Amino acid sequence: MSAPTEHPTADAVVIGAGPVGLFQVFQLGLQGIRAHVVDALAHAGGQCAELYADKPIYDLPGVPRCTGRELVALLLRQTAPFAPRWQFGSLVQTLQPLPDGQFVLGCSDGAQLHARQVFIAAGLGAFVPKRLPVPGLERFEGHQVFYANAIPALAASAGLRVVVHGGEESAVAQAVALAEQRQSAGGGDGAGAPASVTLLHRRDVFQAPPEQLARLQQLRDAGLLQVVAGQITGFQTSGGLRSVERGDGQSVEQNSQVAEARLCALELLTPAGHTERLPLDQLQALLGISPRLGPIVDWGLALERKQLRVDPATMVTSVPGIYAVGDINSYPGKRKLLVCGFHEATLAAWAAAEARAGQPLPLQYTTTSPRLQERLGVRE
Amino acid sequence: MSAPTEHPTADAVVIGAGPVGLFQVFQLGLQGIRAHVVDALAHAGGQCAELYADKPIYDLPGVPRCTGRELVALLLRQTAPFAPRWQFGSLVQTLQPLPDGQFVLGCSDGAQLHARQVFIAAGLGAFVPKRLPVPGLERFEGHQVFYANAIPALAASAGLRVVVHGGEESAVAQAVALAEQRQSAGGGDGAGAPASVTLLHRRDVFQAPPEQLARLQQLRDAGLLQVVAGQITGFQTSGGLRSVERGDGQSVEQNSQVAEARLCALELLTPAGHTERLPLDQLQALLGISPRLGPIVDWGLALERKQLRVDPATMVTSVPGIYAVGDINSYPGKRKLLVCGFHEATLAAWAAAEARAGQPLPLQYTTTSPRLQERLGVRE
Ligand SMILES: Cc1cc2nc3c(=O)[nH]c(=O)nc-3n(C[C@H](O)[C@H](O)[C@H](O)COP(=O)(O)OP(=O)(O)OC[C@H]3O[C@@H](n4cnc5c(N)ncnc54)[C@H](O)[C@@H]3O)c2cc1C
Ligand SMILES: Cc1cc2nc3c(=O)[nH]c(=O)nc-3n(C[C@H](O)[C@H](O)[C@H](O)COP(=O)(O)OP(=O)(O)OC[C@H]3O[C@@H](n4cnc5c(N)ncnc54)[C@H](O)[C@@H]3O)c2cc1C
Repeated sequence: MSAPTEHPTADAVVIGAGPVGLFQVFQLGLQGIRAHVVDALAHAGGQCAELYADKPIYDLPGVPRCTGRELVALLLRQTAPFAPRWQFGSLVQTLQPLPDGQFVLGCSDGAQLHARQVFIAAGLGAFVPKRLPVPGLERFEGHQVFYANAIPALAASAGLRVVVHGGEESAVAQAVALAEQRQSAGGGDGAGAPASVTLLHRRDVFQAPPEQLARLQQLRDAGLLQVVAGQITGFQTSGGLRSVERGDGQSVEQNSQVAEARLCALELLTPAGHTERLPLDQLQALLGISPRLGPIVDWGLALERKQLRVDPATMVTSVPGIYAVGDINSYPGKRKLLVCGFHEATLAAWAAAEARAGQPLPLQYTTTSPRLQERLGVRE
Repeated sequence: MSAPTEHPTADAVVIGAGPVGLFQVFQLGLQGIRAHVVDALAHAGGQCAELYADKPIYDLPGVPRCTGRELVALLLRQTAPFAPRWQFGSLVQTLQPLPDGQFVLGCSDGAQLHARQVFIAAGLGAFVPKRLPVPGLERFEGHQVFYANAIPALAASAGLRVVVHGGEESAVAQAVALAEQRQSAGGGDGAGAPASVTLLHRRDVFQAPPEQLARLQQLRDAGLLQVVAGQITGFQTSGGLRSVERGDGQSVEQNSQVAEARLCALELLTPAGHTERLPLDQLQALLGISPRLGPIVDWGLALERKQLRVDPATMVTSVPGIYAVGDINSYPGKRKLLVCGFHEATLAAWAAAEARAGQPLPLQYTTTSPRLQERLGVRE
């Protein structure tokens, strides 16, 4: 892993770019506090983007109807004047107080962040792809094995025997897309197309829209894609030789299975109970993305049934300077709804601004305050 | 006053049709609870409608910009599926518990309401027009004296000497509109126009947009409108005779000053310190509408600096069954903002529904719950 990236101290770090994290950025911006936002996903939106992007929400005040995706776009527009720094595809793993009252955050991408105040808007947890529970497979990740948050571009499968693993829409769509590469290439494996495409699932039954299932069948019939039913129980590798420098400067050939072994086949258990071997060069496992609370429970913050306990007047956790808002927090009467999270982000921003000022701040309205309108960039 | 109108017992009475009262109606509707709404104003919207109808709000989550008027229209649309009963132009004056656990509300229009649960969304108080502090004048109200919430139609001033009182936009606009009636009628007092129009204000200085001030000047120059500077110190009446039936069936003429006296002139103190007499038939006092907490402080509910103290987990006041939401309430961390009021209305509806059910209710989402979608009328 590369040396940790040091960022300049941020006014505020917001953990989570879900709807509540986004509104937190907005409310901090109104208070004149610039935010640095980290999310495990490659994009903003949290549950709205991952779990119901196309479904309409009906209970936002003043918004009779909008989909999850539309809400995210609107919230992003609202954060724009405050130019937050975005750090996507990164999991915050550690959060520790420093002697000077600031905090240091350690991220899975190696970044180390320093912050005066931290806002945990982690919702149901970090959205991370479901991984295969096959010991040893992790050492091929990023080279031959890919999960839902990091599927390579289609061109990166040129000439390879690709196995797409999964039974839902995203897996079917990816297998279809790869097989269509083969079709455009004239059925062969030239011109940048995969050498073969296999869709692997527990059973030969898939959950996807009818049109997509029909397309899958066409490609199967045309011999451009095969479906295999089975569960992965293990894998096989082909050891490699590599040359290493010895201390005396001379180069020798050494057998170094660990560093150079290539994944060359999967071991499967079929529905009928047989063992089979499936050769491959690349595995794309699309087993869904689900939220996992992950490291947050280990940060030494007071918990209440796996939620962060906060003071509902300020949203401060058991550690001053660390706030929690949205689905991740807990207080008497808490409901895991958007409108509640938005209120919480508002109170947290006020509390944070007052903590900085060391005194109560007067209420200001966006409709009338020249200062707020200047920050929003709407002052004529 | 007429006999009190009895309404059938309402599931819920919401006091105040401001933004938070409207969202309360919506949230109650999602819980299957139908609301009866009372407001002192002739229309919905509270502060948004009265104080900043044309100014944009920028801090509603998912709504980058909308005016007070637009927000009210959107919230009204959201309440529509739940068909609330509206009672406008009525001030709730009393609120008392009944032995059976319900509540009875007494309204200024004579209506008596029975409710199982009451939601006070009274904001900064009832919007009531500023009245003239001239003792005795109140007995002409509704006949010869009119205030901002009940200005008669232009046609009702036909043939009359009208005095419009006030120094701001609404007063100037009304005087201009009345004088224009005279202009269309050919300067005379025929064809339904007022006999004369006087704009009365402390000083001959008015706060209104430049175009309107220019129009005012034109109409003054044309002799269709006069401006008088002065303060009302008293009034004069002309006693009237009316015929009354005596017990023996015979009709006699009686002097009955109290019942029949007509307001015929105002007594003014001019800026120069003189006393003047201004004859008139009708007084339209447009002195502004401002919120007054009014009777609410006398309902025996616990207060905190003139706000209703609530439990922030449920928004219940010191009396079970009575909830308070929006600008009227107080709890640790309270901010008088829309987003906070919307959250409060949500928690109050949940708490009220759980109080009815006698048990905790599971969270449901509008995006996924068939039951909520049926109530919203969006189920395909
Ligand atoms: C199907 C469905 C329908 C819904 N419908 C409605 C509805 O109609 N109305 C309503 O009000 N609510 C609805 N909700 C609930 C609403 O979506 C949630 O209340 C809301 O998403 C919570 O927002 P959040 O920002 O707190 O958390 P989330 O949306 O969960 O976002 C949290 C973000 O934080 C990131 N994260 C977490 N931990 C870390 C970490 N350690 N490092 C880096 N990133 C991290 C995650 O990747 C994620 O992107 C619905 C939810 C679902 C699942
Ligand atoms: C100029 C201005 C700009 C603002 N800008 C913003 C902004 O940008 N963002 C933001 O979040 N907030 C803003 N606000 C605050 C926001 O308008 C209030 O928080 C909101 O209006 C509160 O809503 P409410 O429904 O609780 O009360 P109100 O809007 O005050 O409505 C209360 C209603 O109850 C009625 N009522 C009261 N008592 C009685 C009674 N006894 N009987 C019958 N009817 C009664 C009143 O007539 C009124 O219609 C602004 C406020 C002002 C004045």
